[in-house]
Amino acid sequence: MLELPVIRELVSRCLIEDLGRGDTTTDSCVPHDAVGRATMDAREDLVFCGAPLVEEVFAQLDPRVQVERLCDEGERLPAGGAAISLEGPSRTLLKGERLSLNFAQRMSGVATLTRSFVDAMASGASTRITDTRKTTPGLRIVERYAVRCGGGHSHRSDLGAAVLIKDNHVAAAGGITPSVTRARAAATHATRIMCEVDTMEQLREALDVRVDVVVLDNFSNEQISAAMKLIDGRAVVEVSGAVSKERITEISALGVDVISIGALTHSARAVDLGLDWTG
Amino acid sequence: MLELPVIRELVSRCLIEDLGRGDTTTDSCVPHDAVGRATMDAREDLVFCGAPLVEEVFAQLDPRVQVERLCDEGERLPAGGAAISLEGPSRTLLKGERLSLNFAQRMSGVATLTRSFVDAMASGASTRITDTRKTTPGLRIVERYAVRCGGGHSHRSDLGAAVLIKDNHVAAAGGITPSVTRARAAATHATRIMCEVDTMEQLREALDVRVDVVVLDNFSNEQISAAMKLIDGRAVVEVSGAVSKERITEISALGVDVISIGALTHSARAVDLGLDWTG
Amino acid sequence: MLELPVIRELVSRCLIEDLGRGDTTTDSCVPHDAVGRATMDAREDLVFCGAPLVEEVFAQLDPRVQVERLCDEGERLPAGGAAISLEGPSRTLLKGERLSLNFAQRMSGVATLTRSFVDAMASGASTRITDTRKTTPGLRIVERYAVRCGGGHSHRSDLGAAVLIKDNHVAAAGGITPSVTRARAAATHATRIMCEVDTMEQLREALDVRVDVVVLDNFSNEQISAAMKLIDGRAVVEVSGAVSKERITEISALGVDVISIGALTHSARAVDLGLDWTG
Amino acid sequence: MLELPVIRELVSRCLIEDLGRGDTTTDSCVPHDAVGRATMDAREDLVFCGAPLVEEVFAQLDPRVQVERLCDEGERLPAGGAAISLEGPSRTLLKGERLSLNFAQRMSGVATLTRSFVDAMASGASTRITDTRKTTPGLRIVERYAVRCGGGHSHRSDLGAAVLIKDNHVAAAGGITPSVTRARAAATHATRIMCEVDTMEQLREALDVRVDVVVLDNFSNEQISAAMKLIDGRAVVEVSGAVSKERITEISALGVDVISIGALTHSARAVDLGLDWTG
Amino acid sequence: MLELPVIRELVSRCLIEDLGRGDTTTDSCVPHDAVGRATMDAREDLVFCGAPLVEEVFAQLDPRVQVERLCDEGERLPAGGAAISLEGPSRTLLKGERLSLNFAQRMSGVATLTRSFVDAMASGASTRITDTRKTTPGLRIVERYAVRCGGGHSHRSDLGAAVLIKDNHVAAAGGITPSVTRARAAATHATRIMCEVDTMEQLREALDVRVDVVVLDNFSNEQISAAMKLIDGRAVVEVSGAVSKERITEISALGVDVISIGALTHSARAVDLGLDWTG
Amino acid sequence: MLELPVIRELVSRCLIEDLGRGDTTTDSCVPHDAVGRATMDAREDLVFCGAPLVEEVFAQLDPRVQVERLCDEGERLPAGGAAISLEGPSRTLLKGERLSLNFAQRMSGVATLTRSFVDAMASGASTRITDTRKTTPGLRIVERYAVRCGGGHSHRSDLGAAVLIKDNHVAAAGGITPSVTRARAAATHATRIMCEVDTMEQLREALDVRVDVVVLDNFSNEQISAAMKLIDGRAVVEVSGAVSKERITEISALGVDVISIGALTHSARAVDLGLDWTG
Repeated sequence: MLELPVIRELVSRCLIEDLGRGDTTTDSCVPHDAVGRATMDAREDLVFCGAPLVEEVFAQLDPRVQVERLCDEGERLPAGGAAISLEGPSRTLLKGERLSLNFAQRMSGVATLTRSFVDAMASGASTRITDTRKTTPGLRIVERYAVRCGGGHSHRSDLGAAVLIKDNHVAAAGGITPSVTRARAAATHATRIMCEVDTMEQLREALDVRVDVVVLDNFSNEQISAAMKLIDGRAVVEVSGAVSKERITEISALGVDVISIGALTHSARAVDLGLDWTG
Repeated sequence: MLELPVIRELVSRCLIEDLGRGDTTTDSCVPHDAVGRATMDAREDLVFCGAPLVEEVFAQLDPRVQVERLCDEGERLPAGGAAISLEGPSRTLLKGERLSLNFAQRMSGVATLTRSFVDAMASGASTRITDTRKTTPGLRIVERYAVRCGGGHSHRSDLGAAVLIKDNHVAAAGGITPSVTRARAAATHATRIMCEVDTMEQLREALDVRVDVVVLDNFSNEQISAAMKLIDGRAVVEVSGAVSKERITEISALGVDVISIGALTHSARAVDLGLDWTG
Repeated sequence: MLELPVIRELVSRCLIEDLGRGDTTTDSCVPHDAVGRATMDAREDLVFCGAPLVEEVFAQLDPRVQVERLCDEGERLPAGGAAISLEGPSRTLLKGERLSLNFAQRMSGVATLTRSFVDAMASGASTRITDTRKTTPGLRIVERYAVRCGGGHSHRSDLGAAVLIKDNHVAAAGGITPSVTRARAAATHATRIMCEVDTMEQLREALDVRVDVVVLDNFSNEQISAAMKLIDGRAVVEVSGAVSKERITEISALGVDVISIGALTHSARAVDLGLDWTG
Repeated sequence: MLELPVIRELVSRCLIEDLGRGDTTTDSCVPHDAVGRATMDAREDLVFCGAPLVEEVFAQLDPRVQVERLCDEGERLPAGGAAISLEGPSRTLLKGERLSLNFAQRMSGVATLTRSFVDAMASGASTRITDTRKTTPGLRIVERYAVRCGGGHSHRSDLGAAVLIKDNHVAAAGGITPSVTRARAAATHATRIMCEVDTMEQLREALDVRVDVVVLDNFSNEQISAAMKLIDGRAVVEVSGAVSKERITEISALGVDVISIGALTHSARAVDLGLDWTG
Repeated sequence: MLELPVIRELVSRCLIEDLGRGDTTTDSCVPHDAVGRATMDAREDLVFCGAPLVEEVFAQLDPRVQVERLCDEGERLPAGGAAISLEGPSRTLLKGERLSLNFAQRMSGVATLTRSFVDAMASGASTRITDTRKTTPGLRIVERYAVRCGGGHSHRSDLGAAVLIKDNHVAAAGGITPSVTRARAAATHATRIMCEVDTMEQLREALDVRVDVVVLDNFSNEQISAAMKLIDGRAVVEVSGAVSKERITEISALGVDVISIGALTHSARAVDLGLDWTG
Repeated sequence: MLELPVIRELVSRCLIEDLGRGDTTTDSCVPHDAVGRATMDAREDLVFCGAPLVEEVFAQLDPRVQVERLCDEGERLPAGGAAISLEGPSRTLLKGERLSLNFAQRMSGVATLTRSFVDAMASGASTRITDTRKTTPGLRIVERYAVRCGGGHSHRSDLGAAVLIKDNHVAAAGGITPSVTRARAAATHATRIMCEVDTMEQLREALDVRVDVVVLDNFSNEQISAAMKLIDGRAVVEVSGAVSKERITEISALGVDVISIGALTHSARAVDLGLDWTG
């Protein structure tokens, strides 16, 4: 869920970005007492999310605007489907239109892309598709939510939320074993120790020191397959490294637990949503 | 240019988003006195930008980090080319790595996409490729800068920066003529009056009331061609409406002044940049 | 219009400035359940504005306070006229009294001064009286609104909202022609190119490179008259340079489009408004 | 003194107000490596203050700008006198010019007006001229400083800084005695109890309950004179109520301790200061 | 009283501290439409305060939560007594539980400790127990309020709220007389001049220059007694210096006006309050 | 480590809390060019921490102040030992004294209390002493750091950092098994599933569904002992529930992994640190 105290501050800042110096066009052309109705509609097949942001945009502009959800967060909408209905002062609807669409289009874009990765999994696979920390600066909480709306899962939220040992940490600490030992001693007992490995040898070492999660970075399908045998349930298995949608079917069929995909958030295009005025 | 007072606040907020609860992994694995050197390198052909953000990220973390620009903002970098060199405490480099890449990858992604649109213009055309208000919430100033680094131009920065009369304004005001009349009376003399038109009839009316810019929305190439004859230099001509890269050559050859493209900012994928450690 | 997201932040900050450490006097002297009624009254002839700020002050303090507007924004009030009625917990009325008056007195002061300049125009003149960027730091949006309430118009909102070439830019660029050429290439197509000129020669050059607005800086009436003949409708004409109210009649009679006056915002005195308790 | 942590936040906010969307004019016309020198000069006789704000404006824009104070805070400058010299990148000087002048002109305006009131005092009088809470919203700390630079003194900084019982408090509490009693019980022992009185009778009552400061509101010179005899050193005496400069001489000659004047901050005009380029 | 504009900002910030990245546990385990009821109960004898913070926590999370006060601020609650009842969406109650308790436990802890000092006063004594500036960074306004709820009083709120001359000021100024003279000249007439003294000689000097408050720092009971005779009503008398609860009875019996105690805020333990679910 | 971007914002806010309206006492009594030297000294045996905050306080006030650390963070200082030396403008030292002490006294108080719990552990025990979410609102990051300086460890940082199923979650979900199942499905693979249990039966169920951490809430020593046998290494074992220092020895001897203690942060008293002037 997106908690109100978090999005309140975000929406306020973004409203000021677009509307901080007024909207002369709307104020001059549209009578102050005009009332309008509109629906936010899908203009292509998509997975919709973003209603909490749309609601907050209009709540901050004018409490008289009524926002009604016409579909669930994470629901598939066909082209032409309606996601949200709006009714209120026409001026307010016009002033909040762009920001509410900018949120919904991007968030639904992330959800839709995620859903396509999830749908690409091998039949019966229980692999998770997750995001990474490669999110848009300032919008991480929103994008992680959108990934979940698309059927994906979240990875650690930030540098403080779990230990994830990468190649530079290993190099600085002098190996996987000392890295894990030091990190385990420092980390809270509430978080898992995750360790990225590049080779089977590193994988063996990571298993020996009993990390919770091994991250197979840039492994080929064959290497993943061999790794799975070696791991044999001793750790959660995450695969990372620019995994394309094409490889999802194969990798998920190998039984890995997690495939993390930076593209979900760093390269999702906005989907096409628009406001159609109905009165 | 990106002014320091603006990006200072943005970078601070985004650093806290990722690092606000510390980085146990790095603090435990990397000695506090280790010093590192790295370069931010292109992993594909791209147009680079984002150095001011990278500099600010590290300036806020630790003033001892030295950041050197190895290429200009907006410069084309081939795969393997180096954009920025970093030297300083290894811990700091690791803590700022992700955010600096998140900024640079997205900004360079926008610049690279923009450049591809600019390069698609007809030979000799002086048409401008511009962004729109369809930017990422909270990052408009940064994305507009990236568009310019890619050879594009900016559109109006926000609702307060110019009058742009759209279909809903026309409908509310009862036609193009009253819309323009009212907006001109309300707007400052420092901004232009821009008017979106859907038909040749609307175009004629907009020219009659002497708008500064006509925006031909969703016109076919033939319609644009006819519109250009009608306009005959009486207004700046902007073409909008989901213009694909393929149509850029043709439209720019028709002599329009501006093609505005929401995709530059709402659908640019991040380009591949990485930090390579050299010591 | 003053949008809620903008004034919400401003009012919150200013309430904390005055009330951040409590109001012992009121809390000790006034019973918590006392209810009061008051009107904000003009104590001299004035043009009133500021109701949105007054409403927001009390909305943030206690939603039970009822604020009713007794006159329109920008309406002339004679001494003794009532602008706003308030009803609610007496403690809250007392705590918000000073800030709401500080806003209303200053804003009405700007509106009243502006109205006096507007009223000084030659009969039938369509000249605009505008503000400048010489506004009170932090209150620009509010003061620009007050100028419009007084019958004036706004100038560009900030450095990013239009190009305005001044003497230092001309000197740095090596003349008016290169200044305008460079600025036009850099500026968005949504903004106008404005150029300040000190002499007829500069004016000629500015017209030759077809600026949108010429700003005649410190021209005498005779020089303005000569300039108008030269310009002959080829550009919007703005006059600037400490224009006194006395000269407004003459200059507006010359047919200039705009007279910009820093004094509207940098030297308006507060008008006398007070809270009269009616129960 | 103006402490850095306080003005840092203020200056940052105000820089973003003016420069948040860039300065296309300067960036296009002025070479990035141009260096300039300028002095901030008085264009009329004035009392200068505001250097800490000017310094902070340029420190935040570019630490390479050198700001040198050529006069003391609160020093009288004749027309033509130089207050501050600036040297640094020309672009930065131009971008910070307006805000630094907006601060200095307003602050020096307050200081200059205050000085004129102070100078109007009777020869040998030790009366203090003070401000009130009628300051510009958001700028109280800065305006109080300016009053002190002009030879004035500060009144209580905000509602929490002292007890000041006014007519509405008296009415709500049922008289001066209960007001003072309750307020004294509630107030800290570090603050004084001040009480506004409208009549000699109220004054007598206030003295009987031993307030620290009596505020004679809207008393005529004769009434003040009579009051002084009655008070006879038993309380600090403050005179308030739209005291004009003309009455200052007479009132100060009566030996009152304090004359508080809202006009110092609510109605000071900006004085004329400008930036003169010297290279 | 705690004013809404002040605690609104504080509560928002603290909610984000705990809930800024969501509450997966609650969102997954608790149905979105579950409704709960709970009371905040004392688990030991205590003086309760903090209701305004608890109300604001839930108001910001979800306006549907109903918060009812079951006791007054500053009321003594026996173990088992109920302070507040809550009813609303179970998820919201769980998400706000910890922060509302963190506020109430600490604030009630301060109030309870204060009450124990107040209760330790000699029978009939009118001495005030006050806090100091030794408050928790960022929570001063809240802790001062809690002290008052416990029957204590406030000291000066911050460095700007009164003059308090300490040993270092005396040393720097060259004695008590020059310190007081300079400070009195600089301070507003609305604040008192307080001076810390370490010896009878310093006390004599402070009385000679007529300070409003003398602060007897680290005086023994005998020294206090001697000082009281010397002072003889000529100044308010404050005793400071790590006064233990045991000495309160004796010192208050000596007739001092104020005993200031840093421990009230710097060393109060949280009292035991818990949320008991009733449905 | 405490990262600069995080404490920068905190220190700025707290400096304004104390110094936002200036320090008249210091500015009037202490010459502007006086230079002072002081050390922050322990006045009782303690574990010191807080140097990063002290450094930041003075860095923000005046970069000329030199702050030198005389001991390590987390080092035991005997009464009389020096923690930090300061040298710089006397005015600045006085203005920052209180806030820097407020931080250091509280943080060192938490560290000292934590150390006493750690020292109470059975010889050879590897049990961790951790904090909880019962931290001071707004200071969580700082207090968690202090706990670690005292030899303790951190618990989950906030609601979003790990799953911790408590009695209300169990009740709402209809048992431990459905709670864990749902939470595991919802939680990231980077966090652990922790479950509070009140009975041996609940413990059995939690182990059956393989939670990562079991939290034995309010178990007697005997119950803990029995639980340890049952658990037999299948989960990390945390003991919670108002564990006194006296019980630490016994419980740690039972081999539990973690004892979490709210008192470390909610009830630590400030230790006595003072600034001693040396010149």
